[in-house]
Amino acid sequence: MKPDDARTVYDGKLIDVTVERWGEHEREIVEHPGAVAVVAVDREGALWLVRQLREPARRQLVEIPAGTREPGEDPLDTAKRELREECGLTGGEWSELGAFWTTPGFCREYMHLYLAEGVIAGEAEPDDDEDVEIVRWPVGELESRLDELEDAKTLAGVLLFLHR
Amino acid sequence: MKPDDARTVYDGKLIDVTVERWGEHEREIVEHPGAVAVVAVDREGALWLVRQLREPARRQLVEIPAGTREPGEDPLDTAKRELREECGLTGGEWSELGAFWTTPGFCREYMHLYLAEGVIAGEAEPDDDEDVEIVRWPVGELESRLDELEDAKTLAGVLLFLHR
Repeated sequence: MKPDDARTVYDGKLIDVTVERWGEHEREIVEHPGAVAVVAVDREGALWLVRQLREPARRQLVEIPAGTREPGEDPLDTAKRELREECGLTGGEWSELGAFWTTPGFCREYMHLYLAEGVIAGEAEPDDDEDVEIVRWPVGELESRLDELEDAKTLAGVLLFLHR
Repeated sequence: MKPDDARTVYDGKLIDVTVERWGEHEREIVEHPGAVAVVAVDREGALWLVRQLREPARRQLVEIPAGTREPGEDPLDTAKRELREECGLTGGEWSELGAFWTTPGFCREYMHLYLAEGVIAGEAEPDDDEDVEIVRWPVGELESRLDELEDAKTLAGVLLFLHR
């Protein structure tokens, strides 16, 4: 399926907006190169989370590590790179937990979700504009702490992990 | 927490984009009035889903019923209105399953997720530009059909429902 016509109406730094014409109607679509997120569990049985300011929420949120794909980058490579840079984690056994559209009504972001079990702690290399605090939750506490999670990919990831 | 400055850089039909300055850095943010989604289960024990073309995905997706809040509208009222309009469902016992940011890195969409149990089928009143097919899945099949779900709110909603 393809639109009859598409034009860029906003060309931003991180975000572009396209208007597509599909037959009789038009759709505004936020363009996005795709993303990855990782449910990372270390050898002590703790899930690694990041707490950071999320400007759209105007406060800090606790989320699983995630990042945006570079053009042409394999999503598994993105996931391993993000986990190393954000959390300093390497190694582990990797598998795919799922894949989904984050907001398919108006945004082209497709997210691959991975499980990395037995990851090994090292040195993080955060981006300059990322002020990220690492949080570790024992896997046994996840069930009772779901109501502390206010991010869709984190809820989906933690619940899919608990459901394996 | 508040930005030091904010300016609108794209004023669209459904989507606006704001650039906020927070100290030394700027953030592009997709503005959104907030949304609701409903895990609706009828008296026969079936979950109601909608299948529709999602232009950003360029194909049809199966999702729980959802909609955008009108300015000032209580989210529970939005949820009941959307469920009646999209699916023709009324009645039922309502409770809140959760609430989350759908993509907190770049978008201000906050979503309230409800559970409506024992809803009653009636006549739907879809919008003119909505070509929506209703799909009913027995609750007992949800566990084995999670891999058919490719929408974050639907995964989170169905998994939270299975986890109650």
